[in-house]
Amino acid sequence: MSCSPSDLAPALAAPRLARLRAACADAGVDAFLVRDTSNVAWLTAFDGVFDDEAAHALLVTSRDAVLHTDSRYAEAARVAAAREGAVAVDDSRSTHAAFAEATLRRGGDPSGEGAVRCGALGIEDSIALAEYRRLEVAFAGDGVRCELRETSGLVRRLRAVKEPSEIARLRAAQAVTDAAFAHVVGFMRPGLTEREVQIELEDFMRRHGAEGLAFPSIVAAGANAASPHAVPGDAKLEAGQCVVLDFGARAHGYCSDMTRTVFLGAPSDRMRAAYEAVRAANERAEALLRPGITGKEAHELAEAVLAEHGFGGAMGHSLGHGVGIDIHEEPNLSPRNDEPLAVGNVVTVEPGVYLPGEFGMRLEDFGVVVEGGFEVFTRSPHDMVVL
Amino acid sequence: MSCSPSDLAPALAAPRLARLRAACADAGVDAFLVRDTSNVAWLTAFDGVFDDEAAHALLVTSRDAVLHTDSRYAEAARVAAAREGAVAVDDSRSTHAAFAEATLRRGGDPSGEGAVRCGALGIEDSIALAEYRRLEVAFAGDGVRCELRETSGLVRRLRAVKEPSEIARLRAAQAVTDAAFAHVVGFMRPGLTEREVQIELEDFMRRHGAEGLAFPSIVAAGANAASPHAVPGDAKLEAGQCVVLDFGARAHGYCSDMTRTVFLGAPSDRMRAAYEAVRAANERAEALLRPGITGKEAHELAEAVLAEHGFGGAMGHSLGHGVGIDIHEEPNLSPRNDEPLAVGNVVTVEPGVYLPGEFGMRLEDFGVVVEGGFEVFTRSPHDMVVL
Repeated sequence: MSCSPSDLAPALAAPRLARLRAACADAGVDAFLVRDTSNVAWLTAFDGVFDDEAAHALLVTSRDAVLHTDSRYAEAARVAAAREGAVAVDDSRSTHAAFAEATLRRGGDPSGEGAVRCGALGIEDSIALAEYRRLEVAFAGDGVRCELRETSGLVRRLRAVKEPSEIARLRAAQAVTDAAFAHVVGFMRPGLTEREVQIELEDFMRRHGAEGLAFPSIVAAGANAASPHAVPGDAKLEAGQCVVLDFGARAHGYCSDMTRTVFLGAPSDRMRAAYEAVRAANERAEALLRPGITGKEAHELAEAVLAEHGFGGAMGHSLGHGVGIDIHEEPNLSPRNDEPLAVGNVVTVEPGVYLPGEFGMRLEDFGVVVEGGFEVFTRSPHDMVVL
Repeated sequence: MSCSPSDLAPALAAPRLARLRAACADAGVDAFLVRDTSNVAWLTAFDGVFDDEAAHALLVTSRDAVLHTDSRYAEAARVAAAREGAVAVDDSRSTHAAFAEATLRRGGDPSGEGAVRCGALGIEDSIALAEYRRLEVAFAGDGVRCELRETSGLVRRLRAVKEPSEIARLRAAQAVTDAAFAHVVGFMRPGLTEREVQIELEDFMRRHGAEGLAFPSIVAAGANAASPHAVPGDAKLEAGQCVVLDFGARAHGYCSDMTRTVFLGAPSDRMRAAYEAVRAANERAEALLRPGITGKEAHELAEAVLAEHGFGGAMGHSLGHGVGIDIHEEPNLSPRNDEPLAVGNVVTVEPGVYLPGEFGMRLEDFGVVVEGGFEVFTRSPHDMVVL
């Protein structure tokens, strides 16, 4: 018996497609059209093919999975398909809507003629309104008769439960991120700009195994840090400030995410109290996390701990979010998430305190929900870093 | 008379909002809800506030412009609003749909009670289907009665005609990009990986004025370059190959975009012939561009020149695209664009030849359509670079 390279490959796509087909069966959907690029990347398990462009569609039926892409990606996609298997590649020049209609027509009636009933075609409600209108037109003709069934987060919910190979990639991304933090702590000093620290941090990650950034890094000093999403600028770091660093790497297609707050010289009593509050909120939330706890319960515990320390209402954002191929995934640790966490969920825990005009701080780890608890990927300690 | 900082600011937002209001009047639209973050950034002219997250909505009526954002961005947005003027900031915790309905209700009936007729609310057909459904619900109640008018590219068409201040930012972004190319040509040699060249290129841009990248850079050697969107990997550069470098910087919120093909040692006759074809296609298309020429005419000229040289059908993508806040903007130099170019349009000109299994090459400049011609921003020459 001969052995092709695809026999040796991990074959990640087939079980993921099987999970999607099961979810479709539960939802009464006969075929599914995937447009979200991260969903496409996860389902195909094609490495190194996709970039930021939303240029692709994946049609999954009970029998087939076909990636519709354009000439710019077709060559790389065919190489990946030969390695991974389970997904065919089609680079015919047509809209994704016309591709979906034609593919379902051929699948239902190999002659390509006559009307075909598909039942319900699942679509993501994250698609653009214009794309939805194109689908309405494509399925209003004499070809395939098909109900468009709008679904919300169907593939994203599958992605929320990570496989061991994904956990390994997430840990690899975090290892680079921890190393970059250790490096930049040795680099930071008053007189540097936020931007200079950002460049050093990002350059280190790229040169030490990151294939890219998970998101544009935040380096925010003094009152700038009171904006949780501050854009690093030409403000110089000054003694007496605290500096928020929020950054992550991308490795093998997966993101990491961490935040540390660094103090330039001895912090004021108020800063010290705020840091104690943030640290306690982080650690008590991480100790709470386990299967069955809801995102809301975790968020509310963190809010309560901040309030106990005299910083009630000073957070203003959710406690955390899922991380995977995207930097923001399911599940959220937010007051609006009543779903219990499950084994394999990967989330950040990032309480913060923001005092407009004064300072801001945040302490963020990320890790995976396991049987009986939460395993933190982040290796950098929680002790106050005073330079 | 006192003089506040906003009196001294360039006040870019007010004329842009005036252009939008005029376009709305032409389209019979009474108010417009902007969700595309680049459209929001352009209309508000807020620098350094927005990142990649689609977290914002801008409601523009005949009298007011209100940015709806969340607590993470509100502080920075208020600072920008105080400097730039013309736009109010609202960080109330509600959906963008509920914000739009409530704001129109208050504007039409200051008591906030009773039904208000808005006529037509313009929306972008690039919004997510889920967002559209939320708007349908928000405007189906007892508050504002409003038709949702789907528009396609309305703000993007305004952005396609660049102002002098935007041209200056685009030139600044390209200056960094040209400098990075000169640097990396001195760095490249056989034995380095594509990825190592990419890191050097991107690091140089960041350390020499780029606030970020316009897009993930492409460094593709040998047969990898036959994929126009190849992702740089661990393939080592080898003598005899040609290497495609496609990269751009972001400066003051605007992108640059350039491609050069570098030869490692004397090229084969076939590579030389392909390069001559690509160069001729580039230069004849750039000589053709002027107001009144259509994107289709420019594309077809380039295809014809490639065919004259024996490389017909070897391009497989459009000749070029607009560039601005986004890396892909209007207008396209593509077979599907019958619109005449106008003064102020900024486009790339990037013919390529891709021979699967052999090599790929591309030569890309970008510049602005001016009276009587096309002014190229790119300063790097077209002569063959042989290392």
